[in-house]
Order: sequence, then structure tokens, then C-alpha cells
Amino acid sequence: MSLTNATPLEVAKAARVGARRLAVLSTDERNAALTAIHQALAQGKDAVLAANRRDLDDANKAAAGGTLSQSLVKRLDLGKPGKYEDMLQGILDVRHLEDPISKITARTLLDDNLTLSRITCPIGVLLIIFEARPEVIANISALAIKSGNAAILKGGRESSHSFAAIASLISKALASTAVPPDCLQLVQTHDVIADLLKQDSYIDLCIPRGGNKLVRYVKDSTSIPVLGHADGICTTYLRPDYPAEKAIKIIVDAKVSYPAGCNALEQLLVDEAALTTTLPPIAEALLAKGVSLRCDATSLAALQSSKALDAHSAALLQPASATDFDTEFLDLVLAIKTVSSLDAAVEHINAHSSHHTDAILTLDGTAARAFLAAVDSSSVYWNTSTRMADGQRYGFGTEVGISTNKIHSRGPVGLEGLTIYKWSIVGDAQVSGDYGAGGRAWKHQKLPLERGDDEFVARSEEERELLRKFRAGRV
Amino acid sequence: MSLTNATPLEVAKAARVGARRLAVLSTDERNAALTAIHQALAQGKDAVLAANRRDLDDANKAAAGGTLSQSLVKRLDLGKPGKYEDMLQGILDVRHLEDPISKITARTLLDDNLTLSRITCPIGVLLIIFEARPEVIANISALAIKSGNAAILKGGRESSHSFAAIASLISKALASTAVPPDCLQLVQTHDVIADLLKQDSYIDLCIPRGGNKLVRYVKDSTSIPVLGHADGICTTYLRPDYPAEKAIKIIVDAKVSYPAGCNALEQLLVDEAALTTTLPPIAEALLAKGVSLRCDATSLAALQSSKALDAHSAALLQPASATDFDTEFLDLVLAIKTVSSLDAAVEHINAHSSHHTDAILTLDGTAARAFLAAVDSSSVYWNTSTRMADGQRYGFGTEVGISTNKIHSRGPVGLEGLTIYKWSIVGDAQVSGDYGAGGRAWKHQKLPLERGDDEFVARSEEERELLRKFRAGRV
Repeated sequence: MSLTNATPLEVAKAARVGARRLAVLSTDERNAALTAIHQALAQGKDAVLAANRRDLDDANKAAAGGTLSQSLVKRLDLGKPGKYEDMLQGILDVRHLEDPISKITARTLLDDNLTLSRITCPIGVLLIIFEARPEVIANISALAIKSGNAAILKGGRESSHSFAAIASLISKALASTAVPPDCLQLVQTHDVIADLLKQDSYIDLCIPRGGNKLVRYVKDSTSIPVLGHADGICTTYLRPDYPAEKAIKIIVDAKVSYPAGCNALEQLLVDEAALTTTLPPIAEALLAKGVSLRCDATSLAALQSSKALDAHSAALLQPASATDFDTEFLDLVLAIKTVSSLDAAVEHINAHSSHHTDAILTLDGTAARAFLAAVDSSSVYWNTSTRMADGQRYGFGTEVGISTNKIHSRGPVGLEGLTIYKWSIVGDAQVSGDYGAGGRAWKHQKLPLERGDDEFVARSEEERELLRKFRAGRV
Repeated sequence: MSLTNATPLEVAKAARVGARRLAVLSTDERNAALTAIHQALAQGKDAVLAANRRDLDDANKAAAGGTLSQSLVKRLDLGKPGKYEDMLQGILDVRHLEDPISKITARTLLDDNLTLSRITCPIGVLLIIFEARPEVIANISALAIKSGNAAILKGGRESSHSFAAIASLISKALASTAVPPDCLQLVQTHDVIADLLKQDSYIDLCIPRGGNKLVRYVKDSTSIPVLGHADGICTTYLRPDYPAEKAIKIIVDAKVSYPAGCNALEQLLVDEAALTTTLPPIAEALLAKGVSLRCDATSLAALQSSKALDAHSAALLQPASATDFDTEFLDLVLAIKTVSSLDAAVEHINAHSSHHTDAILTLDGTAARAFLAAVDSSSVYWNTSTRMADGQRYGFGTEVGISTNKIHSRGPVGLEGLTIYKWSIVGDAQVSGDYGAGGRAWKHQKLPLERGDDEFVARSEEERELLRKFRAGRV
């Protein structure tokens, strides 16, 4: 990793060259780099935390002056018990994952001695733009190297001391590995984001990790593909047949366990028939947790007449405005709407959710299957909490982010989302003119996917040695 | 299909609504629509060809006046022997392909009774912008319906009569099927491309099918993801060990069989050691086919000294300028460059090819495997012609186009490239708070991919009937 003051063009060009070398390193070479990074960050913990305290001091002063939010100060702090260790463990977790590169994912016999293969490969150069959280640098570095991608990292200025300390350690660690140093570049210069976003000849994918404003700015400012989500407006549709006790458990978890998360519940759609049966105990549980309920007229009337509310709860029970059904609250606020049918629920979700994660609660398999098929969101759930939308929970080890894109990767994105593929044909001088009218016929026979006996694996020690030289640029 | 004069916003909104209905149709319902389209176009052949002749008359007048190229006139002609039948057969071929939708491609047991599935689904709304070729409308309509995507088609004005005739037939055919008419819209209004490219809230993917200028314009004018390639600068690297006879066969096919194709060879890299051995007979064969050779100084000297050339051939042997190595000739012209090593060849290709299709000719497995791994192109070949890069040859039935993107789809794109996936979790009231420190542990156990026994398939006639109602918007 280099901590650079080079121009955005120089940074992007160097990353592209580095990426091509990184793309042909072996699994062991990439894993060894992760081991080296882990060791350096473990040994350098004191230096990183000292730098982090400088950032925290500055941030606390800014927060006292009212120019920085307390939640940002909290996200800056690497010294919280367990946080540094979690960051270190994350690197080992990624190292432990299966290599996503050079996997053959399709294989067709086109003709005798003419084989088509689809092989996974890195995307190339990633641009990661992130806000304050300094642990992201270790996290993303591990994911990038494991998947064979170069990464340009641009962090928030609030954590610049922490970044510099981590970058310096990673840089030294990588010097002893096969990973070219330009494959990880930390950009510290201010006001370069706009210029980085112009380097579409050298940067293949941009991943903004931060709030709605950052993501929208990035999407509107570049022709580089952007992976991510601007909003997390998640919805749950409650059918009248679902038991109240389970519904309470799911809805309270979805709304209360981490309201600032993009997978937190923001809207509850209630079937008419559940207004006076299941909704009141659910509302009671939410009000007891301090959740403001912004209700449409029908659900508000139902809740107001259902039971005497204490003054505190009565204050939390509010009429919804139209914008409440297009808002990501990121707070203890839930919009509630009455719907007359499954179709109305699906229509509302497809029009108002952010296509992130939406759930149905029902024991009716037909209704559930129709919902799962018709809701156009990256994650669709049946009888569980929207908070399940997370790479670690999905078993990806860790995640690059959550995508609401309609192409490439959708939902939580792990290592696989950082790969693409190339097509390879190995032949013996067959040509296009051999086939078609009057010529040979294509066989187009699916072949089994055997790893190890293919054109991307060296077959002898001599070949391995030559490949090593090639990777080092010496052939 | 509707032939529309609505505004781009109205078109895009209607397509989005149609797409959501189309996405939940069954395989049989989508295949039945293809059958209906095939039948209508077969029965309406005379009407379509009559309309096509009107376009041809106009085009011939324009060509005579010098405002239209002869090659465009040729591409317009649907009356060429076999062309209409090929178009019809293409619809049946697509119908015959496996349904790419609702396939489970990953399945994980997260915990007891808590299953995560990844299920393929349509992308949503496609915008296809294409130049003169009228048969594309049938081709793309078939691919869009089969993959469950709505499509907005905007064709070149030279073929407007043919389009109107085909659209009218398809529209009538679809009226008797389950496919909502707004799922296929042909935009005839002039000068609406810029406004269509702004509908990023409703259009998910744009596929320009035409020349470099069209593709570059589209890429520069929209924040909708664009699938395609602007250039096809394909390269072949000749190693000294490769037999001349096979090299001649491959290189002549790659250059001469269809010079206007994006997969035609534009550059030949020759290893120094092959300059006086294999290169001369290859050059002779190419010159005999009328190919101009634009040679760097070293290869030019080698060819000039190798043999007495007749006047015609001598005229075709020319010195290369620097721009020749960044040019898509689309003509009987080939740039030739001498390289000193495998590494130099790879470096030249990664810097100058358009990352479409590049090949190595050698009997040396080590060199070939290093080349296949290190060349950063969508298709990489060993001992075959770059002209193999084609969806039909790859066994995809037909292709939407060839992508040089680094995300989503790369190389020839078939039905699979028109799909994405959603994540589904089916649970029994497990919530995020149940897991982690002190709670339950995730199982994260890979499950076999069984089709048929999942949450996307109706399990009884009653369920199938309800799903049908739901699809028709009547639940």
C-alpha cells in the first residue's frame, strides 16, 4: 500500500498496472499477503490506536463545537473493546475463504479438441470511497487482495491519522510479499474525489460506503459503474393469519435492534383483517421500546380505539404524512399503512421500497410464494426480520456492501461480487469458416467442471517456475 | 407490442409496470408468446417484405444520392434468400432454450428452518437502441420475453416501415397471450433517444447495437448501465514454434472471413524468431486475399527481403503508423508488430486491444497458459481464430451482443446476461438478535440445488390457480 499524493490520473494508471500483476498471482501468494497484513496490524496496534486517539481528539473538539455528529465520533473510535481484534479477525476470515479467482464456472465442448471455458477473474481496479470508519481500510484491503483486485481507497478526512498509520503498516507488510505496492493506494489529498471519478479508463468499479448523500453524489458524478445502495427503505407486510407473538419478535428486531442500519424496518403494511387483532399487541411492543408510529388514518383509528394508552405512548402514536412512505428514518420511527390485499401490498412495496429487503409474515404458502416472486427487491423474506440482510449472516465472511443495482451483484456483496469472468477457447486450428452451411456442425456439449486439469493451472515444476517469472515481469 | 408515440417517460413507466407482470409469468406462458410471435411473423411474411421493400426503395434513393452507405442498404434487406426464415428459426431456437428464470443458483442452511436461496430473475426493463437491421426486432423480442424482461426498442429511421409492419404483427400476436402489451414497445418518434436515456428510474439496462459512434454516444449520455462494446480491436500473437500451415488457416479466417465483424483480426504480433520463418508465408496468403499489411519497421524489412513480390502485393505492403495499433479497420487491413517476448505481447495487448478477443498461436503450453491468464480481455484463445467470439458459436442460441464491460456480463451475451438474482430467506420467526455473542451460531451449510421443491413453485392446483390470478392482477 502506498500513501500517495500523486494526481488522480497517476494513481489510477499505477493501480491498473498493479492490477494486471496481481491478477496472475497464485492463491498462496495472495493469502500470504493477508497473513503479512494481519501480522503487521497486530504488532502495530499501539501505533494505530495512538493515531486514532489524535483523530478522536480532533473529532471530539469538532463535536463540542457542533460541526461533527456524536455518532460519527463513535464510528471513528478503534479503541472500543474488541473492535481492533474484530478487524484483525476479519482479515483471517477473508484469508480462510475459498479463492474466488480462476474457478471454471462453465465448460462446453464446441467440437473435437475445441473447448470453451468460462473462468472467474478479478474485475481490475476498484475505487472505494468511504466515510469515517477506519477499520474499513483493513476490511477492504483484505477483500481486494483476496479477489485479485487493485484498490484505490479514499477515506473521510476525520480519520486521516488512523488511515496514515494503518496504511504505513500495510505498506511495509506488503513489501515482503508478491503483491505489487501500487495495488493498494490510499489517497490522502483533499478534494480529489471528483477527479478520481473521471478515471473511467483505468477504474472499473466504484464502491461508495457511507450515507445517502455520498452515494447519490458518486452515482451522479461518474460513468464508472457504481455498486451500492443509496437508501434502505425496508418493508414488512403482515397478513392476518400470522401469530402475534412471532410477529412481535420479528418486527421489534427489524425496527429496534439497529435503527441506523440500512436493513432496519421503515414501513409496516398491515392487512385490514389484522388491524384489530395482531396490530394492537405489535404496536404496544413497539411503543414500549420508544418507537414513534406514523399511521395512516385507518390504522391510527384502529390503534386509538383498541386500548387506553398512557400519555407517553399516546404521544408516540402519530398520523403519517405522505412522505413518510418514501423516507428512510434511520431512527425509532415506523410508518404503518393499511392494505386491502396481497396485490396492494406488492404494488406499494414495488413503488415505495428502495428494493433493498422486504418481508411477508404469513403461514399461507401461496401468498408467501407470490410475494417472494413478485416483489422486485434484492432480498425478499418470508417470516423473518429484514435485519438478516448482511454478508456475514449470509455466510460470505464479510461484505463489501449491499447492492440495490439491477445488474452484476444484488443484495449483500461478498468476494464473488468482486469477480467477473473471461471466456477461453483452446483449439487446434479450427476456424469459424469450418462450420455452418456445408461444413462441420457444432457439438455444444456441456462438460463437467473439473478444477485442476485445465489451461489455467501449471502442469509441471518447470511451468510453475515460468509462470512465477512471468508474474514477476521477467519473461 | 405497442407501436407508440407516447413520451419517453410514459413509455418507460408503462414498461416498468409491464415488466413486473411479465416477471411472474410461467415458463409455458412466456414460451406460448414466442410461439404466437413466430406464427404471426410466418403468416405475415408478405406484408413485412412489402414494407421492407418501401424502406429499401428509400434507402436505394439515398444511397444513389450519396447520403447512405451501400453496406447499410444491404443490412436493411429482409428479402435476401433465407434471411426471413433465419429470423423465424431464431425465435424457435430461443423458445427451445432452458428457462433462465427462477433457477436456484445457491442455497444455504443458515439455521434450522432458516434457508437462504439465490434465485435468478429478470433484470426489468431493457432499452435496445439499434441501427438499420430490421430482423433485430424479432430477435430481441424473443430474448426479452424468454428472459422475462420488458423491452423498449428504438430502431434506425431507415427501416421504419419494416419495423411498423413487424411491430403490428407482434402486437396482434401478443394480444392473445399472457404477456402484457406494454412489455414490448417500439418507439418510432424521432429524436427521443436522449430523453429515453434519462429514464434511469424506470430503465435498468441499455443495449446499443450498432457502430462505434452510437455506442460511445450512449455510454456518454446516460447513467443507466450500458452493455456492449464500442470497438473490436482483436489481436493474435504468433509464437515461432507454431506450424505455418495452421497459422495461415487461423489468421486468414480471422482477417478475411468477415472483416466488418467486431471479432475480426486487426493486429498481428509476431515473435522476432518467426519474422523470417512463419511470417512470410502468412503474409503471402494475406496479400493474395488482398489484405493490406501495415508493418512496423522490423517486420516490413523482413517481408521485403523475404521474397520478390509482384507489384500488386508490393503495394499492399505498407509501413505502419502509430495509430494503426489503436484502430479498428473493419476492412482488409492488418497491422503487424514485432515483439521480443511473451511479456511484451501481453503488455501490448493489454494497452492497445479493446479487450474484446485476443489469441495466442503456440504449441508451448506454458506460454499459452500464461497468456490466457494475463490478457485482460473478455475472450482469450489458444490456437483458434478470433472470429469464434459469437453467441451462436458459444452455444447460447443467439446473442444480445458482445460485452467488453468489466462487470455483469463479458463476451458474447445470451439469455443469462439478461438475468440477475434475488436473495430469499424462508424462516420461522428467527431474528438477527437470536445470533452472535451468547446466542445461537449460524450453520452456514451449503445445500444441494434442487429445483421444484422450493418457495417459487406452486405445490397444488389451488396454489397454481391463485398464482395465475395474482399474475393477472386479480388477487
